[in-house]
Amino acid sequence: MRSGDMLYEGKAKQLFLTEDPTVVRVKYKDSATAFNNQKRATLEGKGEMNNRISTFFFQLLNEKGIANHFIEEISPLEQLVRKVTIIPVEVVVRNIAAGTMAKRLGMAEGTKLKHPIVEFYYKDDELGDPLITEEHISVLDLATNEQVSQLKEQALKVNDILSAFLLEQNIILVDFKLEFGLDGDGNVLLADEISPDTCRFWDKETGERLDKDRFRRDLGQVVEAYHEIWNRLGGK
Amino acid sequence: MRSGDMLYEGKAKQLFLTEDPTVVRVKYKDSATAFNNQKRATLEGKGEMNNRISTFFFQLLNEKGIANHFIEEISPLEQLVRKVTIIPVEVVVRNIAAGTMAKRLGMAEGTKLKHPIVEFYYKDDELGDPLITEEHISVLDLATNEQVSQLKEQALKVNDILSAFLLEQNIILVDFKLEFGLDGDGNVLLADEISPDTCRFWDKETGERLDKDRFRRDLGQVVEAYHEIWNRLGGK
Repeated sequence: MRSGDMLYEGKAKQLFLTEDPTVVRVKYKDSATAFNNQKRATLEGKGEMNNRISTFFFQLLNEKGIANHFIEEISPLEQLVRKVTIIPVEVVVRNIAAGTMAKRLGMAEGTKLKHPIVEFYYKDDELGDPLITEEHISVLDLATNEQVSQLKEQALKVNDILSAFLLEQNIILVDFKLEFGLDGDGNVLLADEISPDTCRFWDKETGERLDKDRFRRDLGQVVEAYHEIWNRLGGK
Repeated sequence: MRSGDMLYEGKAKQLFLTEDPTVVRVKYKDSATAFNNQKRATLEGKGEMNNRISTFFFQLLNEKGIANHFIEEISPLEQLVRKVTIIPVEVVVRNIAAGTMAKRLGMAEGTKLKHPIVEFYYKDDELGDPLITEEHISVLDLATNEQVSQLKEQALKVNDILSAFLLEQNIILVDFKLEFGLDGDGNVLLADEISPDTCRFWDKETGERLDKDRFRRDLGQVVEAYHEIWNRLGGK
Protein backbone atom coordinates (compact mmCIF):
# COMPACT_ATOMS: atom_id res chain seq x y z
CA MET A 1 0.00 0.00 0.00
CA ARG A 2 1.11 3.56 -0.60
CA SER A 3 0.25 7.13 0.23
CA GLY A 4 -3.39 7.90 -0.62
CA ASP A 5 -4.56 4.30 -0.38
CA MET A 6 -7.59 3.74 1.81
CA LEU A 7 -6.58 1.87 4.93
CA TYR A 8 -10.04 1.39 6.40
CA GLU A 9 -13.62 2.49 5.89
CA GLY A 10 -15.88 2.73 8.91
CA LYS A 11 -19.48 3.79 9.32
CA ALA A 12 -18.70 7.51 9.55
CA LYS A 13 -15.09 7.91 8.44
CA GLN A 14 -12.48 6.76 5.95
CA LEU A 15 -8.80 6.41 6.82
CA PHE A 16 -6.05 6.92 4.21
CA LEU A 17 -2.33 6.30 4.27
CA THR A 18 0.00 9.32 3.95
CA GLU A 19 3.67 9.53 3.02
CA ASP A 20 4.50 9.39 6.72
CA PRO A 21 3.85 5.82 7.98
CA THR A 22 3.03 7.17 11.45
CA VAL A 23 0.34 9.53 10.14
CA VAL A 24 -3.06 8.81 8.59
CA ARG A 25 -5.61 11.10 6.95
CA VAL A 26 -9.16 10.85 8.26
CA LYS A 27 -12.06 11.85 6.04
CA TYR A 28 -15.44 12.33 7.69
CA LYS A 29 -18.46 11.04 5.78
CA ASP A 30 -22.04 12.29 5.67
CA SER A 31 -23.44 8.85 6.40
CA ALA A 32 -25.33 8.20 9.60
CA THR A 33 -26.00 4.78 11.12
CA ALA A 34 -27.68 3.66 14.32
CA PHE A 35 -28.75 0.52 16.17
CA ASN A 36 -25.73 -1.47 15.05
CA ASN A 37 -26.11 -0.42 11.41
CA GLN A 38 -29.81 -1.30 11.09
CA LYS A 39 -30.82 2.33 10.49
CA ARG A 40 -28.91 4.29 7.84
CA ALA A 41 -29.10 7.64 6.10
CA THR A 42 -27.01 10.28 4.39
CA LEU A 43 -27.09 13.62 6.17
CA GLU A 44 -25.51 16.33 4.05
CA GLY A 45 -23.12 18.47 6.03
CA LYS A 46 -22.76 16.08 8.99
CA GLY A 47 -19.24 15.05 7.96
CA GLU A 48 -17.99 18.62 7.98
CA MET A 49 -19.59 19.39 11.33
CA ASN A 50 -18.10 16.28 12.94
CA ASN A 51 -14.68 17.11 11.53
CA ARG A 52 -14.91 20.69 12.85
CA ILE A 53 -16.30 19.73 16.24
CA SER A 54 -13.87 16.82 16.72
CA THR A 55 -10.97 19.07 15.78
CA PHE A 56 -12.13 21.61 18.33
CA PHE A 57 -12.41 19.07 21.16
CA PHE A 58 -9.12 17.34 20.39
CA GLN A 59 -7.33 20.71 20.40
CA LEU A 60 -9.01 21.68 23.67
CA LEU A 61 -8.02 18.35 25.26
CA ASN A 62 -4.50 18.69 23.95
CA GLU A 63 -4.19 22.09 25.64
CA LYS A 64 -5.42 20.48 28.86
CA GLY A 65 -2.80 17.74 28.69
CA ILE A 66 -4.84 14.81 27.37
CA ALA A 67 -2.61 12.93 24.87
CA ASN A 68 -4.55 12.30 21.69
CA HIS A 69 -4.05 11.33 18.08
CA PHE A 70 -4.99 14.68 16.49
CA ILE A 71 -2.37 16.53 14.45
CA GLU A 72 -4.18 19.07 12.28
CA GLU A 73 -7.30 19.82 10.28
CA ILE A 74 -6.44 19.99 6.58
CA SER A 75 -9.81 20.53 4.90
CA PRO A 76 -13.49 20.86 5.82
CA LEU A 77 -13.78 17.06 5.90
CA GLU A 78 -10.24 15.97 6.74
CA GLN A 79 -7.78 15.70 9.59
CA LEU A 80 -4.32 14.28 9.93
CA VAL A 81 -3.94 12.04 12.96
CA ARG A 82 -1.31 9.74 14.48
CA LYS A 83 -1.63 6.18 13.27
CA VAL A 84 -2.69 3.96 16.17
CA THR A 85 -3.94 0.43 16.70
CA ILE A 86 -7.38 0.83 18.18
CA ILE A 87 -7.98 -1.00 21.47
CA PRO A 88 -11.24 -2.91 20.82
CA VAL A 89 -12.96 -1.48 23.88
CA GLU A 90 -15.38 1.44 23.66
CA VAL A 91 -15.12 3.58 26.76
CA VAL A 92 -18.38 5.28 27.73
CA VAL A 93 -18.65 7.95 30.43
CA ARG A 94 -22.09 8.79 31.78
CA ASN A 95 -23.21 11.69 33.96
CA ILE A 96 -26.95 11.24 33.43
CA ALA A 97 -28.90 8.05 32.64
CA ALA A 98 -30.01 7.98 28.99
CA GLY A 99 -30.23 5.65 26.03
CA THR A 100 -29.26 2.02 26.52
CA MET A 101 -28.25 2.47 30.14
CA ALA A 102 -31.62 3.93 31.15
CA LYS A 103 -33.42 1.17 29.27
CA ARG A 104 -31.29 -1.75 30.52
CA LEU A 105 -31.45 -0.67 34.16
CA GLY A 106 -35.02 0.61 34.23
CA MET A 107 -33.98 4.19 35.06
CA ALA A 108 -35.91 7.24 33.86
CA GLU A 109 -33.96 9.02 31.12
CA GLY A 110 -32.54 12.17 32.65
CA THR A 111 -31.78 10.70 36.08
CA LYS A 112 -28.60 12.37 37.31
CA LEU A 113 -26.10 9.76 38.50
CA LYS A 114 -24.63 10.35 41.93
CA HIS A 115 -21.18 10.20 40.34
CA PRO A 116 -19.95 9.83 36.75
CA ILE A 117 -19.48 6.21 35.71
CA VAL A 118 -17.24 4.58 33.14
CA GLU A 119 -18.55 1.62 31.14
CA PHE A 120 -16.70 -0.62 28.70
CA TYR A 121 -18.18 -2.16 25.57
CA TYR A 122 -16.55 -4.84 23.44
CA LYS A 123 -16.07 -3.22 20.01
CA ASP A 124 -17.48 -6.00 17.86
CA ASP A 125 -20.28 -5.29 15.37
CA GLU A 126 -21.22 -8.95 14.99
CA LEU A 127 -21.80 -9.24 18.73
CA GLY A 128 -23.58 -5.87 18.86
CA ASP A 129 -20.89 -4.17 20.99
CA PRO A 130 -21.89 -5.83 24.29
CA LEU A 131 -21.30 -4.27 27.70
CA ILE A 132 -18.28 -5.90 29.34
CA THR A 133 -16.57 -5.74 32.70
CA GLU A 134 -12.89 -5.30 33.47
CA GLU A 135 -12.71 -9.04 34.09
CA HIS A 136 -14.05 -9.75 30.60
CA ILE A 137 -11.39 -7.41 29.17
CA SER A 138 -8.82 -9.44 31.07
CA VAL A 139 -9.95 -12.91 30.00
CA LEU A 140 -10.46 -11.77 26.40
CA ASP A 141 -6.99 -10.16 26.45
CA LEU A 142 -8.39 -6.93 24.99
CA ALA A 143 -6.11 -4.72 27.11
CA THR A 144 -3.77 -5.04 30.07
CA ASN A 145 -4.94 -4.12 33.57
CA GLU A 146 -2.64 -1.11 33.45
CA GLN A 147 -4.14 0.03 30.16
CA VAL A 148 -7.64 -0.37 31.60
CA SER A 149 -6.66 1.86 34.51
CA GLN A 150 -5.35 4.43 32.04
CA LEU A 151 -8.55 4.28 29.97
CA LYS A 152 -10.67 4.94 33.04
CA GLU A 153 -8.46 7.71 34.36
CA GLN A 154 -8.22 9.46 30.99
CA ALA A 155 -11.93 9.09 30.29
CA LEU A 156 -12.87 10.70 33.62
CA LYS A 157 -10.41 13.56 32.98
CA VAL A 158 -11.92 14.11 29.53
CA ASN A 159 -15.33 14.17 31.19
CA ASP A 160 -14.25 16.85 33.67
CA ILE A 161 -12.74 19.02 30.95
CA LEU A 162 -15.56 18.70 28.43
CA SER A 163 -18.39 18.92 30.96
CA ALA A 164 -17.04 22.15 32.43
CA PHE A 165 -16.34 23.69 29.03
CA LEU A 166 -19.73 22.72 27.58
CA LEU A 167 -21.65 23.96 30.59
CA GLU A 168 -20.28 27.45 29.82
CA GLN A 169 -21.95 27.09 26.41
CA ASN A 170 -25.23 26.05 28.07
CA ILE A 171 -24.76 22.45 27.02
CA ILE A 172 -25.06 19.48 29.36
CA LEU A 173 -22.72 16.61 28.56
CA VAL A 174 -24.98 13.63 29.31
CA ASP A 175 -22.66 10.85 28.15
CA PHE A 176 -20.08 10.09 25.49
CA LYS A 177 -18.06 7.28 23.93
CA LEU A 178 -14.29 7.35 23.50
CA GLU A 179 -11.92 5.05 21.70
CA PHE A 180 -8.23 4.74 22.46
CA GLY A 181 -5.34 3.37 20.46
CA LEU A 182 -1.73 2.35 20.90
CA ASP A 183 0.95 4.22 18.95
CA GLY A 184 4.11 2.56 17.64
CA ASP A 185 5.75 2.90 21.05
CA GLY A 186 2.80 1.32 22.89
CA ASN A 187 1.56 4.61 24.33
CA VAL A 188 -2.19 4.87 24.93
CA LEU A 189 -3.61 7.77 22.89
CA LEU A 190 -7.18 9.05 22.79
CA ALA A 191 -8.33 8.52 19.19
CA ASP A 192 -11.44 8.22 16.99
CA GLU A 193 -13.72 11.29 17.20
CA ILE A 194 -15.62 13.41 19.70
CA SER A 195 -18.76 14.75 18.05
CA PRO A 196 -22.56 14.75 18.28
CA ASP A 197 -22.32 11.23 16.80
CA THR A 198 -20.46 10.01 19.89
CA CYS A 199 -21.80 12.28 22.65
CA ARG A 200 -25.19 13.18 24.08
CA PHE A 201 -25.51 16.96 24.31
CA TRP A 202 -28.63 18.47 25.90
CA ASP A 203 -29.47 22.16 25.90
CA LYS A 204 -29.17 23.28 29.51
CA GLU A 205 -32.36 25.36 29.48
CA THR A 206 -34.74 23.39 27.28
CA GLY A 207 -33.30 19.86 27.43
CA GLU A 208 -33.40 19.83 23.63
CA ARG A 209 -31.34 17.01 22.13
CA LEU A 210 -28.40 18.36 20.12
CA ASP A 211 -26.87 15.06 19.05
CA LYS A 212 -27.35 11.80 17.20
CA ASP A 213 -30.48 10.97 19.22
CA ARG A 214 -32.25 13.32 16.76
CA PHE A 215 -31.42 10.73 14.09
CA ARG A 216 -31.95 7.61 16.25
CA ARG A 217 -35.35 8.83 17.44
CA ASP A 218 -36.53 10.56 14.25
CA LEU A 219 -36.64 13.98 15.92
CA GLY A 220 -35.69 15.75 12.68
CA GLN A 221 -33.34 18.75 12.26
CA VAL A 222 -30.31 16.51 12.74
CA VAL A 223 -27.64 18.49 10.92
CA GLU A 224 -29.11 21.73 12.25
CA ALA A 225 -28.46 20.47 15.78
CA TYR A 226 -24.84 19.65 14.87
CA HIS A 227 -24.51 23.20 13.50
CA GLU A 228 -25.92 24.54 16.75
CA ILE A 229 -23.20 22.72 18.71
CA TRP A 230 -20.57 24.06 16.33
CA ASN A 231 -21.92 27.59 16.72
CA ARG A 232 -21.84 27.37 20.50
CA LEU A 233 -18.21 26.26 20.34
CA GLY A 234 -17.55 29.53 18.51
CA GLY A 235 -17.57 27.92 15.05
CA LYS A 236 -16.12 30.08 12.33
CA MET B 1 -48.60 -12.65 59.46
CA ARG B 2 -47.95 -15.63 61.66
CA SER B 3 -46.03 -18.89 61.77
CA GLY B 4 -46.80 -21.04 58.74
CA ASP B 5 -47.86 -18.13 56.52
CA MET B 6 -46.16 -17.98 53.13
CA LEU B 7 -43.77 -15.05 52.99
CA TYR B 8 -42.78 -15.36 49.35
CA GLU B 9 -43.12 -17.70 46.40
CA GLY B 10 -40.34 -17.78 43.85
CA LYS B 11 -39.84 -19.81 40.70
CA ALA B 12 -38.32 -22.80 42.49
CA LYS B 13 -39.01 -22.28 46.20
CA GLN B 14 -41.58 -21.11 48.72
CA LEU B 15 -40.64 -19.31 51.95
CA PHE B 16 -42.75 -19.62 55.11
CA LEU B 17 -42.65 -17.81 58.45
CA THR B 18 -41.80 -19.82 61.55
CA GLU B 19 -42.37 -19.07 65.22
CA ASP B 20 -38.90 -17.55 65.34
CA PRO B 21 -38.93 -14.21 63.47
CA THR B 22 -35.27 -14.67 62.51
CA VAL B 23 -35.88 -18.08 60.88
CA VAL B 24 -37.80 -19.02 57.73
CA ARG B 25 -38.75 -22.38 56.30
CA VAL B 26 -37.82 -22.98 52.65
CA LYS B 27 -39.78 -25.50 50.62
CA TYR B 28 -38.27 -26.56 47.29
CA LYS B 29 -40.70 -26.98 44.39
CA ASP B 30 -40.61 -29.34 41.41
CA SER B 31 -41.15 -26.50 38.94
CA ALA B 32 -38.46 -25.60 36.44
CA THR B 33 -38.21 -22.32 34.55
CA ALA B 34 -35.67 -20.95 32.09
CA PHE B 35 -35.06 -17.94 29.84
CA ASN B 36 -36.57 -15.47 32.28
CA ASN B 37 -39.66 -17.62 32.86
CA GLN B 38 -40.51 -18.18 29.18
CA LYS B 39 -39.93 -21.93 29.39
CA ARG B 40 -41.63 -23.84 32.20
CA ALA B 41 -42.18 -27.40 33.31
CA THR B 42 -42.79 -29.56 36.35
CA LEU B 43 -40.02 -32.07 36.97
CA GLU B 44 -40.99 -34.60 39.59
CA GLY B 45 -38.27 -35.11 42.16
CA LYS B 46 -36.26 -31.98 41.28
CA GLY B 47 -37.35 -30.19 44.46
CA GLU B 48 -36.07 -32.97 46.68
CA MET B 49 -32.77 -33.21 44.85
CA ASN B 50 -32.18 -29.46 45.08
CA ASN B 51 -33.02 -29.46 48.77
CA ARG B 52 -30.61 -32.35 49.38
CA ILE B 53 -27.81 -30.95 47.23
CA SER B 54 -28.17 -27.41 48.57
CA THR B 55 -28.13 -28.73 52.12
CA PHE B 56 -24.95 -30.64 51.34
CA PHE B 57 -23.16 -27.62 49.86
CA PHE B 58 -24.26 -25.20 52.57
CA GLN B 59 -23.02 -27.61 55.23
CA LEU B 60 -19.71 -28.07 53.41
CA LEU B 61 -19.27 -24.30 53.09
CA ASN B 62 -20.17 -23.82 56.74
CA GLU B 63 -17.43 -26.27 57.74
CA LYS B 64 -15.03 -24.28 55.56
CA GLY B 65 -15.91 -21.00 57.24
CA ILE B 66 -18.27 -19.45 54.69
CA ALA B 67 -21.08 -17.77 56.64
CA ASN B 68 -24.43 -18.79 55.16
CA HIS B 69 -28.12 -18.82 55.95
CA PHE B 70 -28.55 -22.60 56.32
CA ILE B 71 -29.70 -23.98 59.69
CA GLU B 72 -31.00 -27.50 59.10
CA GLU B 73 -32.82 -29.79 56.72
CA ILE B 74 -36.19 -30.75 58.22
CA SER B 75 -37.81 -32.87 55.49
CA PRO B 76 -37.07 -34.13 51.96
CA LEU B 77 -38.27 -30.79 50.55
CA GLU B 78 -37.62 -28.39 53.42
CA GLN B 79 -34.87 -26.46 55.15
CA LEU B 80 -34.81 -23.95 57.97
CA VAL B 81 -32.66 -20.92 57.14
CA ARG B 82 -31.85 -17.54 58.68
CA LYS B 83 -34.19 -14.80 57.52
CA VAL B 84 -32.28 -12.31 55.39
CA THR B 85 -33.04 -9.42 53.08
CA ILE B 86 -31.72 -10.49 49.69
CA ILE B 87 -29.26 -8.07 48.04
CA PRO B 88 -30.72 -7.64 44.51
CA VAL B 89 -27.46 -8.59 42.81
CA GLU B 90 -26.87 -12.08 41.44
CA VAL B 91 -23.21 -13.00 41.79
CA VAL B 92 -21.93 -15.32 39.07
CA VAL B 93 -18.53 -17.00 39.14
CA ARG B 94 -17.20 -18.51 35.94
CA ASN B 95 -14.26 -20.84 35.37
CA ILE B 96 -15.13 -21.84 31.81
CA ALA B 97 -17.06 -19.86 29.17
CA ALA B 98 -20.58 -21.25 28.71
CA GLY B 99 -24.17 -20.11 28.32
CA THR B 100 -24.86 -16.39 28.07
CA MET B 101 -21.23 -15.39 28.56
CA ALA B 102 -20.01 -17.51 25.65
CA LYS B 103 -22.81 -16.20 23.46
CA ARG B 104 -22.46 -12.50 24.38
CA LEU B 105 -18.69 -12.47 23.95
CA GLY B 106 -18.43 -14.77 20.95
CA MET B 107 -16.40 -17.39 22.82
CA ALA B 108 -16.63 -21.11 22.13
CA GLU B 109 -18.49 -22.87 24.93
CA GLY B 110 -15.92 -24.76 26.96
CA THR B 111 -13.12 -22.18 26.66
CA LYS B 112 -11.20 -22.27 29.92
CA LEU B 113 -10.81 -18.73 31.33
CA LYS B 114 -7.29 -17.76 32.30
CA HIS B 115 -8.61 -16.94 35.77
CA PRO B 116 -12.04 -17.27 37.43
CA ILE B 117 -14.19 -14.18 36.98
CA VAL B 118 -17.02 -12.71 39.02
CA GLU B 119 -19.96 -11.09 37.25
CA PHE B 120 -22.88 -9.20 38.73
CA TYR B 121 -26.44 -9.23 37.42
CA TYR B 122 -29.23 -6.91 38.53
CA LYS B 123 -31.88 -9.22 40.02
CA ASP B 124 -34.93 -7.84 38.23
CA ASP B 125 -37.21 -10.14 36.24
CA GLU B 126 -38.84 -7.29 34.32
CA LEU B 127 -35.45 -6.14 33.07
CA GLY B 128 -34.33 -9.71 32.37
CA ASP B 129 -31.59 -9.69 35.04
CA PRO B 130 -29.10 -7.58 33.05
CA LEU B 131 -25.32 -7.76 33.51
CA ILE B 132 -24.15 -4.80 35.59
CA THR B 133 -20.81 -3.39 36.67
CA GLU B 134 -19.73 -2.33 40.14
CA GLU B 135 -20.38 1.26 39.11
CA HIS B 136 -23.98 0.42 38.22
CA ILE B 137 -24.37 -1.21 41.65
CA SER B 138 -23.10 2.04 43.16
CA VAL B 139 -25.34 4.45 41.25
CA LEU B 140 -28.38 2.19 41.70
CA ASP B 141 -27.57 1.91 45.44
CA LEU B 142 -27.96 -1.86 45.32
CA ALA B 143 -25.09 -2.46 47.75
CA THR B 144 -22.26 -0.52 49.37
CA ASN B 145 -18.73 -0.70 47.95
CA GLU B 146 -17.70 -2.66 51.05
CA GLN B 147 -20.52 -5.16 50.51
CA VAL B 148 -19.52 -5.54 46.85
CA SER B 149 -15.96 -6.36 47.94
CA GLN B 150 -17.36 -8.96 50.35
CA LEU B 151 -19.56 -10.49 47.64
CA LYS B 152 -16.57 -10.89 45.32
CA GLU B 153 -14.28 -12.25 48.00
CA GLN B 154 -16.86 -14.72 49.32
CA ALA B 155 -17.86 -15.83 45.82
CA LEU B 156 -14.25 -16.61 44.87
CA LYS B 157 -13.74 -18.54 48.12
CA VAL B 158 -16.90 -20.55 47.45
CA ASN B 159 -15.53 -21.26 43.97
CA ASP B 160 -12.23 -22.55 45.38
CA ILE B 161 -13.98 -24.80 47.89
CA LEU B 162 -16.64 -26.20 45.56
CA SER B 163 -14.35 -26.60 42.54
CA ALA B 164 -11.81 -28.60 44.52
CA PHE B 165 -14.47 -30.74 46.19
CA LEU B 166 -16.36 -31.44 42.97
CA LEU B 167 -13.23 -32.32 41.04
CA GLU B 168 -12.71 -35.19 43.47
CA GLN B 169 -16.14 -36.45 42.38
CA ASN B 170 -15.13 -36.11 38.71
CA ILE B 171 -17.31 -33.03 38.26
CA ILE B 172 -16.11 -29.79 36.71
CA LEU B 173 -17.67 -26.68 38.20
CA VAL B 174 -18.10 -24.54 35.07
CA ASP B 175 -19.96 -21.61 36.62
CA PHE B 176 -22.56 -20.85 39.27
CA LYS B 177 -24.83 -18.14 40.60
CA LEU B 178 -24.98 -17.06 44.23
CA GLU B 179 -27.29 -14.74 46.09
CA PHE B 180 -26.44 -13.02 49.34
CA GLY B 181 -28.61 -11.40 51.98
CA LEU B 182 -28.31 -9.17 55.02
CA ASP B 183 -29.36 -10.54 58.41
CA GLY B 184 -30.94 -8.36 61.12
CA ASP B 185 -27.51 -7.12 62.18
CA GLY B 186 -26.49 -6.15 58.65
CA ASN B 187 -24.11 -9.09 58.18
CA VAL B 188 -23.70 -10.39 54.63
CA LEU B 189 -24.74 -14.06 54.51
CA LEU B 190 -24.63 -16.42 51.55
CA ALA B 191 -28.27 -17.38 50.90
CA ASP B 192 -30.66 -18.81 48.27
CA GLU B 193 -29.57 -22.26 46.99
CA ILE B 194 -26.62 -24.05 45.42
CA SER B 195 -27.92 -26.78 43.14
CA PRO B 196 -27.95 -27.98 39.53
CA ASP B 197 -30.50 -25.20 38.97
CA THR B 198 -27.88 -22.57 39.81
CA CYS B 199 -24.60 -24.22 38.76
CA ARG B 200 -23.17 -25.74 35.61
CA PHE B 201 -21.72 -29.18 36.38
CA TRP B 202 -19.93 -31.10 33.63
CA ASP B 203 -18.74 -34.68 33.94
CA LYS B 204 -14.95 -34.52 33.95
CA GLU B 205 -14.49 -37.45 31.55
CA THR B 206 -17.36 -37.12 29.10
CA GLY B 207 -18.33 -33.44 29.40
CA GLU B 208 -21.91 -34.58 29.94
CA ARG B 209 -24.13 -31.81 31.30
CA LEU B 210 -25.38 -32.64 34.79
CA ASP B 211 -27.39 -29.48 35.44
CA LYS B 212 -30.26 -27.26 34.33
CA ASP B 213 -28.83 -26.97 30.82
CA ARG B 214 -30.46 -30.39 30.26
CA PHE B 215 -33.79 -28.59 30.72
CA ARG B 216 -32.83 -25.34 28.92
CA ARG B 217 -31.52 -27.23 25.90
CA ASP B 218 -34.02 -30.10 25.85
CA LEU B 219 -31.33 -32.71 26.47
CA GLY B 220 -33.71 -34.93 28.43
CA GLN B 221 -32.96 -36.96 31.61
CA VAL B 222 -33.05 -33.80 33.70
CA VAL B 223 -33.95 -35.20 37.10
CA GLU B 224 -31.71 -38.22 36.44
CA ALA B 225 -28.76 -35.81 36.09
CA TYR B 226 -29.67 -34.13 39.39
CA HIS B 227 -29.76 -37.60 40.99
CA GLU B 228 -26.33 -38.33 39.51
CA ILE B 229 -24.93 -35.21 41.20
CA TRP B 230 -26.55 -36.23 44.47
CA ASN B 231 -25.11 -39.73 44.17
CA ARG B 232 -21.61 -38.41 43.54
CA LEU B 233 -21.91 -36.24 46.65
CA GLY B 234 -22.48 -39.49 48.54
CA GLY B 235 -26.28 -39.08 48.65
CA LYS B 236 -28.05 -41.38 51.00
